[in-house]
Amino acid sequence: MVAVELLIRGTVIHTPSFSSLAVLENAVLGVHDGRVAFCEDAHTEVIDPGGFVTLRTGARWDLADACVIRELPPRGFVVPGLIDTHTHAPQFKFAGTGYDMQLLDWLTTYTFPSEAKWSDLQHAARVCHNAVRRTLRHGTTSCLWFATIHTDAAVQLGRIAAGLGQRAFVGKVNMDRNAPPTYCEASAAESLAETERFVKLVLGDAAAGGRGADAAADGVCVDCAPLGPPPQPVITPRFVPTCTAELMAGLGALAKEHNLLVTSHVSENEGEIAWVKELHPEAPSYTAVYDMMGLLTDKTILAHGVYLRQDERALFKARGAAVSHCPLSNLQLRSGMLNVRRCLEEGVAVALGTDVSGGAAPSMLSAVREALKVSNMVSLAERRPPQRFGEHEGKPYEPLSYAEAFWLATVGGARALGVEHLTGDFGDGAAFDAVVVDPDASGSPIDLYEGEPPLEAFQKWIQLGDDRNTAGVYVNGVGVL
Amino acid sequence: MVAVELLIRGTVIHTPSFSSLAVLENAVLGVHDGRVAFCEDAHTEVIDPGGFVTLRTGARWDLADACVIRELPPRGFVVPGLIDTHTHAPQFKFAGTGYDMQLLDWLTTYTFPSEAKWSDLQHAARVCHNAVRRTLRHGTTSCLWFATIHTDAAVQLGRIAAGLGQRAFVGKVNMDRNAPPTYCEASAAESLAETERFVKLVLGDAAAGGRGADAAADGVCVDCAPLGPPPQPVITPRFVPTCTAELMAGLGALAKEHNLLVTSHVSENEGEIAWVKELHPEAPSYTAVYDMMGLLTDKTILAHGVYLRQDERALFKARGAAVSHCPLSNLQLRSGMLNVRRCLEEGVAVALGTDVSGGAAPSMLSAVREALKVSNMVSLAERRPPQRFGEHEGKPYEPLSYAEAFWLATVGGARALGVEHLTGDFGDGAAFDAVVVDPDASGSPIDLYEGEPPLEAFQKWIQLGDDRNTAGVYVNGVGVL
Repeated sequence: MVAVELLIRGTVIHTPSFSSLAVLENAVLGVHDGRVAFCEDAHTEVIDPGGFVTLRTGARWDLADACVIRELPPRGFVVPGLIDTHTHAPQFKFAGTGYDMQLLDWLTTYTFPSEAKWSDLQHAARVCHNAVRRTLRHGTTSCLWFATIHTDAAVQLGRIAAGLGQRAFVGKVNMDRNAPPTYCEASAAESLAETERFVKLVLGDAAAGGRGADAAADGVCVDCAPLGPPPQPVITPRFVPTCTAELMAGLGALAKEHNLLVTSHVSENEGEIAWVKELHPEAPSYTAVYDMMGLLTDKTILAHGVYLRQDERALFKARGAAVSHCPLSNLQLRSGMLNVRRCLEEGVAVALGTDVSGGAAPSMLSAVREALKVSNMVSLAERRPPQRFGEHEGKPYEPLSYAEAFWLATVGGARALGVEHLTGDFGDGAAFDAVVVDPDASGSPIDLYEGEPPLEAFQKWIQLGDDRNTAGVYVNGVGVL
Repeated sequence: MVAVELLIRGTVIHTPSFSSLAVLENAVLGVHDGRVAFCEDAHTEVIDPGGFVTLRTGARWDLADACVIRELPPRGFVVPGLIDTHTHAPQFKFAGTGYDMQLLDWLTTYTFPSEAKWSDLQHAARVCHNAVRRTLRHGTTSCLWFATIHTDAAVQLGRIAAGLGQRAFVGKVNMDRNAPPTYCEASAAESLAETERFVKLVLGDAAAGGRGADAAADGVCVDCAPLGPPPQPVITPRFVPTCTAELMAGLGALAKEHNLLVTSHVSENEGEIAWVKELHPEAPSYTAVYDMMGLLTDKTILAHGVYLRQDERALFKARGAAVSHCPLSNLQLRSGMLNVRRCLEEGVAVALGTDVSGGAAPSMLSAVREALKVSNMVSLAERRPPQRFGEHEGKPYEPLSYAEAFWLATVGGARALGVEHLTGDFGDGAAFDAVVVDPDASGSPIDLYEGEPPLEAFQKWIQLGDDRNTAGVYVNGVGVL
């Protein structure tokens, strides 16, 4: 009989289904081989390493001799690891600054010059370390990272993230038009060749030859076994305006050939949308451009989608593509407010992203909060006669609940990334990707009063908690923090 | 010749005028008798206790023998203390929860029952301590506090705040209609008598007789000299729906008699506005009700004002009353978005508030961030043809800059509270109310890179900083944290 190597005792909170929060007090959660073996109340006499646990169902599990038994903090709880489906590692360097511009000016003034510096792998490694460590401290166990156009820096980002224990999805960015000479690839052909090299390197084909390993010696133990699962390469055209049709079509073919995730941006800002229309008069919509290039699939995650039209949302649904909603970025770059409820009602998959540094905060808790606020404001606009945020057909807009927003930050993210069998909740067989939360941690921003139930503590954490409340982070059952 | 007792050396940042941020690197700021004696570059040979400092202007100041010389952290800076012009101490208890309702239901379901518990002074003292300590840690040196209807608990709040060193403005709340029996005053006459007792007690008239001192013995040193300046009593009708005309008129008279600040809520939520219209068909507007009662003066601060009409804004301007903009609360309670730029252009005084627990966060930095985001979204709405947030006459809406938002959180607050001669910036003669910020503090949420100028660090603090970056807080030149 197999035995569990890790047993968590205390309050477990997750969202096994949309809008329903399961709160299991006095639960036991057993982990075998990195996976959740069980998660429920216990009827048991012996809980010691080498002992056993009998569940309410009658099932009996042995505890390995070296089983680690972790009692959660008295008023703490464990939740599934948070999943960030959109963020830019190089932009962590200037996060918090540069919000005096909207998207297109912001890209050329702040972003491209900063990303261009990733030609220096030592510099890139330093920024990566900060970025990955910060997100882990905020409980982000899975993350879809944009790197830069530099293949080796992008490979290095994947190594650093995996090295530190994160479940990482990493994209080398493609740009072969409308970009400054210092930060633009020479041709579609070169960009495609580099992308192929990137994919092979990340998939472990050493023959592809990368300089990443050497350079990463700056603070990265390249010989150590990484704490986390191997990174996944992601096809990452920056967005339509910076990619020629030749490049996009080539990337679509590459994604198909290797069965890869695809990520990019869509319909974030009205100036951007007008530009895409100008660049692609042949396409019926912004979304349709990606579709025509083979880049809109059930493995595609496009960030923002603030101004998606009804026909575009239908196309998302038909292809099974997901929107990564990045509310803080949309507010800070003055982009707009996505109607998440409408997307969900129309069958469009939605997940959440931080979009550092369009959004300043690297925390997925922050993304949850901002999603709730944006949803509140959209609900006000929706019930009024003059139409504001696109078409308003359909049901009235009910603002997201905190349970729904938390679902988006966990299960929604897992679905968007195609890993819902693996992470997002604590269903049997899921990888144990988790955050241990302690509302009473030293310096905690939360005040709990006696007699407050776990759901009260959970809500306070959602609205007020920060990385000080992160008392532990697990990925694949391995404690990475 | 007088000598300074405290000398701060390093980077000083403040907003001596709206939208202009002054950044003084390598500055010296001298404090004599709690006031700013000078704040500028130094040309000097001897800076030691008992020595002297010669300023660029040629002026020479002696340093007292016991002068404390504080070198700011290498990449840190000092800013004026932040000023919260609207928050509710009793609501700190459930901050972070209860955002499933809009204002009126939220009041009856969550707020009134929680505030009713302040009849227990021990309980109230505990919540007060948490509330005041939290705000001080976030750099709030001046705060306009709503207490509850309980006179002694309100007096106690003032003592605790002053005891801990905060410049406190405290209101005993008035409610004599449309409130639950357990949390409603018996009559206008009783409410007025209690308010008079409150005012006298806070102003130090022991003969008024209060039980506050005894009960406050729970953790409050009532015999110790308070660290901060004495609290100021504020006339605080909760809002029109819970106050009879008799009560409001009486409070207006009381405010006039004692020359007191007045605070309340106005035009926060559309349901509330409709209710006021129903209750006061004789009044041309919500704001006009306060005006008719003598409660709209140049010492009045009304929170929210999201839906103020043009005639109401004109009335604010004519009376010299201020709006306390509480953006997080307006987002979380699904109230709406105030057009701050329009208020300012029309000559309405605006300050910022956290409005805990309509807003979850007790931090004025958070208020600054939320004000920027709301301003961004209003700017998008403003440039569009269908009118959304009231009338749109006048200039296009330029979103607030971070410097402007910071001004609102400092100078704007001081003006609203009628203490602009005393706090808000570092002008000569101002009380030294200040926050020492260290971006490199232990656990800091900010990543600085080499060569980043102070303005970069300041922006990162504005967008990403938290109480971990608070390395010191001064009120009246006294280090209170």
